[in-house]
Amino acid sequence: MKTTVIGLGLIGGSIALDLRKAGLATELVGIDLNAANASKAVELGLVDKIENEGVALSTSDLIILAIPVSALSQLLPSVLDAIKKNAVVIDTGSTKRMICRAISNHSNRGQFVAAHPIAGTEYSGPEAAFEGLFRDKTNIICEREKSSSHALAVVDKVFTTLGMNTIFMEPEEHDKHVAYVSHLSHVSSFLLGPTVLDIERDEKNIFALAGSGFASTVRLAKSSPDMWAPIFEQNAEFLSQALLEYIMHLQKFQYYLMKRDGKELHRIMKDANRIREVLDGIEYKQVKQVQDK
Amino acid sequence: MKTTVIGLGLIGGSIALDLRKAGLATELVGIDLNAANASKAVELGLVDKIENEGVALSTSDLIILAIPVSALSQLLPSVLDAIKKNAVVIDTGSTKRMICRAISNHSNRGQFVAAHPIAGTEYSGPEAAFEGLFRDKTNIICEREKSSSHALAVVDKVFTTLGMNTIFMEPEEHDKHVAYVSHLSHVSSFLLGPTVLDIERDEKNIFALAGSGFASTVRLAKSSPDMWAPIFEQNAEFLSQALLEYIMHLQKFQYYLMKRDGKELHRIMKDANRIREVLDGIEYKQVKQVQDK
Repeated sequence: MKTTVIGLGLIGGSIALDLRKAGLATELVGIDLNAANASKAVELGLVDKIENEGVALSTSDLIILAIPVSALSQLLPSVLDAIKKNAVVIDTGSTKRMICRAISNHSNRGQFVAAHPIAGTEYSGPEAAFEGLFRDKTNIICEREKSSSHALAVVDKVFTTLGMNTIFMEPEEHDKHVAYVSHLSHVSSFLLGPTVLDIERDEKNIFALAGSGFASTVRLAKSSPDMWAPIFEQNAEFLSQALLEYIMHLQKFQYYLMKRDGKELHRIMKDANRIREVLDGIEYKQVKQVQDK
Repeated sequence: MKTTVIGLGLIGGSIALDLRKAGLATELVGIDLNAANASKAVELGLVDKIENEGVALSTSDLIILAIPVSALSQLLPSVLDAIKKNAVVIDTGSTKRMICRAISNHSNRGQFVAAHPIAGTEYSGPEAAFEGLFRDKTNIICEREKSSSHALAVVDKVFTTLGMNTIFMEPEEHDKHVAYVSHLSHVSSFLLGPTVLDIERDEKNIFALAGSGFASTVRLAKSSPDMWAPIFEQNAEFLSQALLEYIMHLQKFQYYLMKRDGKELHRIMKDANRIREVLDGIEYKQVKQVQDK
């Protein structure tokens, strides 16, 4: 299949690597607004070449969009205008309502599959791409019933090749879940950084005093604002609700702290320990992934 | 040196392992209120034997306290009452004002060194102990001028053996710094867990949707409430201040979120990216540590 990847960063680049390795993508074309990223992606062998967008879209069997969600909603309608018959388009965005709405009445809606392969690191750009990023992780497909059976079959091959388990959800449901399970932890981490940096003007103190716990908690604060600002904006309502609940929990904790109510603080933390089982499951997935490599 | 370790968990057990390996502790006695932990520690070879507390204290050259900070303030005065001449006592507590105050007028104050070796994992108990936990990490000693030169010399040998870099601080300064750099990230993680668990009643959703980012951010929520409740209580003022600042940052973020002000959200995250340099330093320390093993 001639495959075009639009957006040659961590996600797009890693997908390209896996699809080529499995022989699914026989010809790999890259497109990136950032010329430096585009030539870097060719240099790294993520894609074979850069092609004119019109040519690439009208001749590819598979088009994968891995660009910030704001650009996605803008670009996708014109991509669907330009593709050949039977071509399949997938997006990889972290929010799904806006993108599904943007092309809901498009005549080629059936050729598009709205997907969210949940994987990533705090790094970005073509250099961050690596083989196996998606293995044993979850992919979400939204509005399955609006995609053609041909498109779904092709996309199934793609995500099976990446080693992902696909589940199906409505866009609204998807956006709400990821607000809590993914976006909120990014916000909590993004704001922990400045809170500590504000007080510790001497960064050597953080360096010396921080255990691995601090590093782990604040790791996501290294993530790309270019990617995350549009996601947060598109998921503002659900994320705002999640944030308010988080703030309420923090305020309650602070109240018991000021009352020196160790018993209640203990109870809250004991309750938080429930997360152990969930995390053990996630760690099991990760260990399995490493072993499978 | 005959060495007694009071509190045979992650910290006490790991210190015992390193001191024995280096030959610094020639006889290792363990004491733990929890009888199961005590016999487990002997079984695992963390200590040679369990001894009557009175005997152990009156015959040991070095006594290391690795118990929750609430128990520490209560126990330390009677420990200092019971030791032999020239014996040295070290604590390992994560707060330092309360403990320094508790023995400030004790006649054997000079034999005590107030220490905080900053290391740990989210696991606890004797099974969690391992060799090399402290290597290349930071140890803080408070009120150095109140410890005898003999005590400081012994303690220097101990922390050098553990592979730690020791710095000196006043108790007040120590407690303030750790509130921001360590305790706050624990609270942020402890409360992220319940926020997500509250909404995701079906834990399978968390399991499926959570990327490694969620796991990393919420990892500390697995920590022991028995250890952390007393720390938070003793450091309530500074931690409360840190929490309020964190909440303020979160609220500001939520405000811009509701305004759909992507530009301002971007600016805040860009600013948070400053943490990269700090984290790269911490990761460098960790990589170095692994390589040195």
